[in-house]
Amino acid sequence: MRIFKEIKEAQGYIKKEKEKGRSVGFVPTMGYLHEGHLSLIREARKRNDLVVVSIFVNPAQFGPKEDYKRYPRDLKRDERLARASGADIIFYPSVRGIYPDGYQTYVEVTDITERLCGKSRPGHFKGVATIVTKLFNIVQPDIAYFGQKDAQQAIVIKRMAGDLNMDLKIRVMPIVREPDGLAMSSRNRYLSDRERSDAPVLYDSLNLARRLIKSGCRDTNRIKNDMKRLIKSKKGARIDYISISDLRNLRELKRIKKEALIALAVRIGKRRLIDNMIVGGRI
Amino acid sequence: MRIFKEIKEAQGYIKKEKEKGRSVGFVPTMGYLHEGHLSLIREARKRNDLVVVSIFVNPAQFGPKEDYKRYPRDLKRDERLARASGADIIFYPSVRGIYPDGYQTYVEVTDITERLCGKSRPGHFKGVATIVTKLFNIVQPDIAYFGQKDAQQAIVIKRMAGDLNMDLKIRVMPIVREPDGLAMSSRNRYLSDRERSDAPVLYDSLNLARRLIKSGCRDTNRIKNDMKRLIKSKKGARIDYISISDLRNLRELKRIKKEALIALAVRIGKRRLIDNMIVGGRI
Repeated sequence: MRIFKEIKEAQGYIKKEKEKGRSVGFVPTMGYLHEGHLSLIREARKRNDLVVVSIFVNPAQFGPKEDYKRYPRDLKRDERLARASGADIIFYPSVRGIYPDGYQTYVEVTDITERLCGKSRPGHFKGVATIVTKLFNIVQPDIAYFGQKDAQQAIVIKRMAGDLNMDLKIRVMPIVREPDGLAMSSRNRYLSDRERSDAPVLYDSLNLARRLIKSGCRDTNRIKNDMKRLIKSKKGARIDYISISDLRNLRELKRIKKEALIALAVRIGKRRLIDNMIVGGRI
Repeated sequence: MRIFKEIKEAQGYIKKEKEKGRSVGFVPTMGYLHEGHLSLIREARKRNDLVVVSIFVNPAQFGPKEDYKRYPRDLKRDERLARASGADIIFYPSVRGIYPDGYQTYVEVTDITERLCGKSRPGHFKGVATIVTKLFNIVQPDIAYFGQKDAQQAIVIKRMAGDLNMDLKIRVMPIVREPDGLAMSSRNRYLSDRERSDAPVLYDSLNLARRLIKSGCRDTNRIKNDMKRLIKSKKGARIDYISISDLRNLRELKRIKKEALIALAVRIGKRRLIDNMIVGGRI
């Protein structure tokens, strides 16, 4: 496995591999890898000749009061895990390399970024769209892999890639969960014991929604209210949003017809957790 | 010469040519080709295996009161001229193909687009950066050619390509002029006889600046004032701006040290004309 820190070196090396006819699978991450990331790397390994994993904690997608500085980092551990899962290359650029002095270009997806997480994290998806565009231009993947855990992110990137005519495929892989249902996240390590024991309530509320829909309920207000009641039974939980939206344009639905994204963000103590479920379709 | 109207067909065809090891030179235009465009096509012909010319009058870069609808179009004439200058492919997409329903992704270069023409044409460079990104992703050129006539545009695109790590080179070619010095432009055809006879004053003012600098003058206020006086001698002329700026960040200079961009926009009757000259460097 090779590790590249310089953009030009990574770009040049991968380009030469592509010119030999090798296909490139790409897994962009912020590091501190968990089973969710590793499932993407393993899938990329199955379908591509060259598997590139990037590790970059992207300052442009964190708000001023968010946890950019405290975001967990452990390159040695990530190297070991990425190699064991089949990565050929780790691309690990510096912040100065990615955003040099005078940097001033941004990619912005408009409408769908103003909903769900976009409301409480202004500028977040602009930072995501910009770094992903840059990484795509450096790595030039045939297929890029994202986790459904960040469903809105996956939808935004898919929309961006389509709108900008990027010549690649976006694959969105299922959420990987802890045994009690909590969606895996690098930030879960910050949860106190008490918070950790409350955290599966997000998944429980999604399962409740699933059962309601299975029993024939289509009224999204009723489903949301039942989810709300369940979550509020946990004292430390404060709901940021519960959304049942159209899977393409993320507009809220009154009734579920075919496809829908059920997504929520909940603060458990100081930590903001997200989770989601898709019914009747896929991203 | 081939003409592609469908994005996927153009993208697929060019991709296959690249996989054969052929280099791609690209000249993006809004059509109604003149000698300025043709000089770019000829240069692309010299340096590349495959020469692609795009023709697309991009609504996103016109303001609501600008001349999008009246912009001259003549595909038959453009075909003939492009072929004669060495083009292999004309890419001629539709507005619906480029901006389908629900389109919502934009590329924005910030600081340098707020100066010079950016002041009187808000949103213009966002439209330019977006369409050029899309065209680059479709054509995937090794080298893209732009005219120095639109100096700020060339500087914005070069900055964007660098910032977003696009894997291509930007070449900026000299301004092509009419015998009396007027810079060639598709919009020159709209000038009345009277306006046309006043129009070379832009170039005359740049030559005046050149002479002042040659004789040792470095004070940009003095140069601008002399240019202003000359332009105001034409009754129908109204100055939009005269700028002497740093060639990289487009900030106004008090004194000329090494490199500088001398640029101006002047309304002659109803028409807004631009011209520029670079001293001591190149874009």
